[in-house]
Amino acid sequence: MNVEQYMQETGQRVRAAARVIARAETKMKNAALLAIADRIEADESRLIKENRQDLEAGVKNGLDAALLDRLELNPDRIAAMAEGLRQIAALPDPIGEITDLNYRPSGIQVGRMRVPLGVIGIIYESRPNVTADAAALCLKSGNAAILRGGSEAIHSNQAVAACIHAGLKEAGLPAETVQVVETTDRAAVGELIRMQRYVDVIVPRGGKGLIERIANEARVPVIKHLDGICHVYVDEAADAAMAVRIAYNAKTHRYGVCNAMETLLVARGIAEQVLPELGALYAEEGVELRGCEATRQILSQARPVTEEDWVTEYLAPILAIRVVADVDEAMAHIAEHSSGHTESIVTNDYRCAQRFLREVDSSSVMVNASTRFADGFEYGLGAEIGISTDKIHARGPVGLEGLTSQKYVVLGDGQIRE
Amino acid sequence: MNVEQYMQETGQRVRAAARVIARAETKMKNAALLAIADRIEADESRLIKENRQDLEAGVKNGLDAALLDRLELNPDRIAAMAEGLRQIAALPDPIGEITDLNYRPSGIQVGRMRVPLGVIGIIYESRPNVTADAAALCLKSGNAAILRGGSEAIHSNQAVAACIHAGLKEAGLPAETVQVVETTDRAAVGELIRMQRYVDVIVPRGGKGLIERIANEARVPVIKHLDGICHVYVDEAADAAMAVRIAYNAKTHRYGVCNAMETLLVARGIAEQVLPELGALYAEEGVELRGCEATRQILSQARPVTEEDWVTEYLAPILAIRVVADVDEAMAHIAEHSSGHTESIVTNDYRCAQRFLREVDSSSVMVNASTRFADGFEYGLGAEIGISTDKIHARGPVGLEGLTSQKYVVLGDGQIRE
Repeated sequence: MNVEQYMQETGQRVRAAARVIARAETKMKNAALLAIADRIEADESRLIKENRQDLEAGVKNGLDAALLDRLELNPDRIAAMAEGLRQIAALPDPIGEITDLNYRPSGIQVGRMRVPLGVIGIIYESRPNVTADAAALCLKSGNAAILRGGSEAIHSNQAVAACIHAGLKEAGLPAETVQVVETTDRAAVGELIRMQRYVDVIVPRGGKGLIERIANEARVPVIKHLDGICHVYVDEAADAAMAVRIAYNAKTHRYGVCNAMETLLVARGIAEQVLPELGALYAEEGVELRGCEATRQILSQARPVTEEDWVTEYLAPILAIRVVADVDEAMAHIAEHSSGHTESIVTNDYRCAQRFLREVDSSSVMVNASTRFADGFEYGLGAEIGISTDKIHARGPVGLEGLTSQKYVVLGDGQIRE
Repeated sequence: MNVEQYMQETGQRVRAAARVIARAETKMKNAALLAIADRIEADESRLIKENRQDLEAGVKNGLDAALLDRLELNPDRIAAMAEGLRQIAALPDPIGEITDLNYRPSGIQVGRMRVPLGVIGIIYESRPNVTADAAALCLKSGNAAILRGGSEAIHSNQAVAACIHAGLKEAGLPAETVQVVETTDRAAVGELIRMQRYVDVIVPRGGKGLIERIANEARVPVIKHLDGICHVYVDEAADAAMAVRIAYNAKTHRYGVCNAMETLLVARGIAEQVLPELGALYAEEGVELRGCEATRQILSQARPVTEEDWVTEYLAPILAIRVVADVDEAMAHIAEHSSGHTESIVTNDYRCAQRFLREVDSSSVMVNASTRFADGFEYGLGAEIGISTDKIHARGPVGLEGLTSQKYVVLGDGQIRE
């Protein structure tokens, strides 16, 4: 197979379909989503059979247990996939919404209409449910999509693709609206991220290394989600019990997630009040502590922290702790070491809270809440295609709106420029 | 001078200043803008003296009359520069605005706060007033800026920079907030568009060639303004007098601007009613007409149009005309040939107007108005750093809001994820 030619032809077909889906009525898009959900449930046994091929190949190729687990489809996961599609069908349609339509002195009315981006390219790994999920978010937001899953999930992804195509056709929409790349040749990714004519934005989902590589090589704009080095700062004016609760939750609720706390900053004036209790709680959970000198005077079990720790996303039961003088030192630490994902202050001081909210330059900034809330569902977006650590276009959890743009609309009555 | 080292050091200084301007109060930012305006007026004679050096060098280097005119500073233009700064000071401050702050079922309040992008890099040519104008838009939106003007305006730009630095200092803000690159070495542009650590977005202002080159080489996101191949479609259901008025204005009000009409599409059913009158009006203005076969049967003076004409931004008194069957054929022509800048339909048919608004994928879509209205001032943005033909981030005229982003803010009362 000539990969370049295959991708170019795919791009052409998807671009043509994008014009149709962009103007499709809400009713049709929802009908397609529901039809795909039905088809996925009806095809359960075929999906499991195709998935088994991937799992067997994965075992042969020595994939580790965690990867094999993510790759597996079972009846529960298939039902969850269908349920996810139905939830997206139930969300309000963002497309066509007109805002801020106002009369100008010239007599024209000017407003902004929300429109699809066009064609979204999504690059992801292992979990076959992403195929259904990403397709649904693109469809609902009026976009066409080129999906490129990992080679380890090729049979599962193609089986899901068949359901998507059948559902689209059933609703009277072009099957080409969602293309799941059929080749496992890596050159396909290289083509996808350079097809400016056919692709409007790339959303890579995966590890930091993959995303950095894609961002560096892409000619198409990329919505990036790099690392989450999230901080909780416990201010001197914090409610100590609340501080312990939040710092405990932010670290131990789940370890392998981007919105888990990786560094705890504690004001000197409250350190002796909160650190011993937190130390005991973390010890129960087996969390390894790495602390600055002042931390280690309170928590003798903490190992010495290194500069490297401040910029490491552990994604593991490890926590770096630093005692700071005040909110200024905490914000300076964050400005220097944070990845700009999510930071939270625990305080009852109005002015500190206001300053933290305004001055901390991260995609989510919180007062008296666990960093674990940084999530599209918790924020009420109804769905999430990823979390952006970029500043341009979309920042923080990206739902349907992040896959749209706004054009200006002008309603006149014959006005001309004088 | 080591250009790489110079630009890296500039980047570091501007990044540090960006943290200060991001949290500067509205009052301080406005004070700086007004102080810069005063300084520019007070320095009139110095500005004219420095500008004369550029003009003399320009004459020596054989710049053409149009370029020399754009380069010139005179008392009127200096007064206009100062007035522009005062107008930007009078605009509402977009920074810190919180929208959509709502309670979620978990008990947290989630909203979005408008924040600066950080450091804006602007690359432009000849007109020294852009130095003041771009600096002012960046300052007001809480951003620091690295400005890189053309080498032909180096003395003028440095003289304006001195006024900017003096005004910033007077208001108690760091002079480093706005850096006007001091070297004319072209390598500085190459550095600027690759300094991802220090620059958040690049706004190039200039010809399509310059912008395409920058976009292709940049590692920093670019807000692009490519060409404006704008269409007016006169529908069969148009008011013929209105159609003539709009099509005449869209072409002849100004020729060298991106929102001028370059192609006129006319429905077959109304062509004989509007084209003869339009032909006579265009002839009076010396507009050269290039038409399809059907056009030439009505307007014998029109030359035959070529495929090349449909994708050419004339920026000149030339107009391509095509007779089409209906709104579908018009929209198909636009989808194939438009640069996605601005299109207008003239019609009194409700359904055609609604379809055109929804289906045409351009940054501005109009009904019964001249394409010449596609402009930040006409749209009420109060200012304009450029017009984006991108879909990502900002589309259409870009004012202060286009230089900002939104972060999520979460207000809790001790909530944790269960």
